Amino acid sequence: MDPRSARVIADLRELAALTSDAGGAQRVAWGPIWRTTRAWFTQKLAEIGVVPELDPAGNLWATVAGRSPRCLVIGSHLDSVPGGGWLDGCLGVITGLEVLRAAVASGETPALTLRVVDWADEEGARFGRSLVGSSASAGTLNPQAELAHLVDRKGVKLPDALAENGVSLDTILGAADYFRALDAAAYLELHIEQGPVLEEMGEPAGVVLGTMGVERHMLRFIGQAAHSGAAPIHLRKDAFLAAAEFAIACRDISTRHSGSEPRTRVVATCGVVNNHPNFVTAVPGSTEISIDMRALDAGVLAQMFAEAQEAARVAAERHLVEVVWTRIWDIPPRLFDPTLLRFVRESITEVIGHAVELPSGPLHDAAEMVPLVPTAMLFALSSPGISHTRLEDTPEEALDVSIQAFLRTVDKTVAHHA
Amino acid sequence: MDPRSARVIADLRELAALTSDAGGAQRVAWGPIWRTTRAWFTQKLAEIGVVPELDPAGNLWATVAGRSPRCLVIGSHLDSVPGGGWLDGCLGVITGLEVLRAAVASGETPALTLRVVDWADEEGARFGRSLVGSSASAGTLNPQAELAHLVDRKGVKLPDALAENGVSLDTILGAADYFRALDAAAYLELHIEQGPVLEEMGEPAGVVLGTMGVERHMLRFIGQAAHSGAAPIHLRKDAFLAAAEFAIACRDISTRHSGSEPRTRVVATCGVVNNHPNFVTAVPGSTEISIDMRALDAGVLAQMFAEAQEAARVAAERHLVEVVWTRIWDIPPRLFDPTLLRFVRESITEVIGHAVELPSGPLHDAAEMVPLVPTAMLFALSSPGISHTRLEDTPEEALDVSIQAFLRTVDKTVAHHA
Repeated sequence: MDPRSARVIADLRELAALTSDAGGAQRVAWGPIWRTTRAWFTQKLAEIGVVPELDPAGNLWATVAGRSPRCLVIGSHLDSVPGGGWLDGCLGVITGLEVLRAAVASGETPALTLRVVDWADEEGARFGRSLVGSSASAGTLNPQAELAHLVDRKGVKLPDALAENGVSLDTILGAADYFRALDAAAYLELHIEQGPVLEEMGEPAGVVLGTMGVERHMLRFIGQAAHSGAAPIHLRKDAFLAAAEFAIACRDISTRHSGSEPRTRVVATCGVVNNHPNFVTAVPGSTEISIDMRALDAGVLAQMFAEAQEAARVAAERHLVEVVWTRIWDIPPRLFDPTLLRFVRESITEVIGHAVELPSGPLHDAAEMVPLVPTAMLFALSSPGISHTRLEDTPEEALDVSIQAFLRTVDKTVAHHA
Repeated sequence: MDPRSARVIADLRELAALTSDAGGAQRVAWGPIWRTTRAWFTQKLAEIGVVPELDPAGNLWATVAGRSPRCLVIGSHLDSVPGGGWLDGCLGVITGLEVLRAAVASGETPALTLRVVDWADEEGARFGRSLVGSSASAGTLNPQAELAHLVDRKGVKLPDALAENGVSLDTILGAADYFRALDAAAYLELHIEQGPVLEEMGEPAGVVLGTMGVERHMLRFIGQAAHSGAAPIHLRKDAFLAAAEFAIACRDISTRHSGSEPRTRVVATCGVVNNHPNFVTAVPGSTEISIDMRALDAGVLAQMFAEAQEAARVAAERHLVEVVWTRIWDIPPRLFDPTLLRFVRESITEVIGHAVELPSGPLHDAAEMVPLVPTAMLFALSSPGISHTRLEDTPEEALDVSIQAFLRTVDKTVAHHA
């Protein structure tokens, strides 16, 4: 194993031991273990003479000044879901630490200023809104509309939890001014895939083409509850059957629009189903069902969404029910920068002789960076291909390949801007 | 309107005024308003010199002795669901009261002993087990297995609620001995349809052919939860999609086995759907879904159930998930007595010139009587065709037809046994 990869993995193991319990990683943003995590990270930075800085959104910035004030930003997140894995987020931040460590150790001033950012509350695990810190930096966050009302399971209000960490909703968007002033030339992020695609391909690492666009909605099919024995089939207004047909239609839509290559795959998921009155002897009177559609191609996503709307209309009509749509959230596809993607592709190829490409279905802080700065990501294999569980893992050989390739990508990017 | 129908309707209006609030009827079994209801009914019986008797299950029996100790039992229930309608159950009991009233007023001893029974806790609204009193009389109740553990929403144990009404689980099956000793020659029940079938046919009353058999089961489809963005469609084990396909297959099974006549119609209902983890961004990992299938023909019901099992197997296989069945409850079809059905048919025809026939999808106390004694039912139109709501109703003209026809059926049955 490459000695730099070995250092990164050793740091990751040390952090996991410090911030996990039998249930997994517990670095939930804004809480005590998260603060412990950042104190540990600050100590690691102190060992190389770097003193980090917090921006108004609580993002932690560690900097090694270069010959130019223009900077390369290397980012990811140290926070985890409750009972999370040891790599989700940390891999990228700790590999960034290794970049700073190497720069300091080299004794030479880098051509670009190097900045590592630990984004605050990427997961949204406690209050439900993810990408808090990076969206504040991007200026896409609406703190009053999106954050002010949020409360955690124990009844703690988000503004109070942020205040414990020195962050206020009144000033949080100052993070956008802070970011603009950095004069970023590029943003790079290393992350685990969190899915089974690289594992299915037998690849340790992959070039991430961008994050898929998302259309996320809640539908309510409204029929008429009735007695399961008394209501003849042809006189029913069964809301659940309409929802069931909608879900199957959405699966078919995703299959129809999916190509055979990872880059042309799309997904559609009905994750929430709430049925009323939900009695064994009652024809369902109303059913709530969510749809989450994702594609890397904006035109394909728009077409999928249009077909889903038509499928809901047809299902409602067939079952004599009504359907009401409520938009939950949407984001367009965020395609990464072609030049940076070339550096990622070349880097992986230099390490293992070839490079595969895939989109990211999950969102990442990198998605918030795309409108602001040339951005790219590199995925490390997940095996098993799951995340947000203590079972999340990546073999060390794959981590080694991914870290080596990412460090090469950093070098190429700096060289490009020298 | 026939004066006897008018008396029945007047009594029903009086009872509704006494035992309903703005939310509907509140005659929930074993509670104070139910006791008020029975006190009112006992007073009505006292006016004709009849003193009712409680059997060991809390069923209330009112008797006018005949020349023969053999008896005709006329039954239904005075209890209601919370917020129920004014006719569900009461119509049959109060029409029975009118039978006794007319017998007493005639000054003649009837050929058969006439007994009206108000079955205890037909609805099962408070503790969840319906047909409590009639199943005790039929000896099909297992009080320790089915009742001993039940608790209402306020935490009151069923045995304590029964004790308040002089009923004990230790002696409840004494109701079966009590019933056997009555030497019943026939059982007749008048009830509202509770569904839209007679309304669709434009008929005020109908001959009930029997109660449908019921196959009631819970299925659990078990797949693998995954991230809605990270998991490609072809690698998913989506439990909800399997449940959705199962529900649609069951609807198709019911359509395929349904004839065009009410008697050959069958139903299948997926009433309960519980989805896990039920997050917008999670592929469902497990989904619980109930199936309730009903048919008047035992062979058809068995075939439907077999096809449902196969549909679940196919859906599970297609979505790479497993399925586990748990039986909730079942009852075979309970076909009514041909001779009594003829009397009902003739009676309705005498009143309106023709008579339609239909099965009952909902269960009734009459279903418990079928194995013990020749049994039949007459349905009054429901309009709107719903029940278990204060909106339940039947136009007075239809009540008049139904009551007249039922009284004629009683006369024919007594004459048959004279």
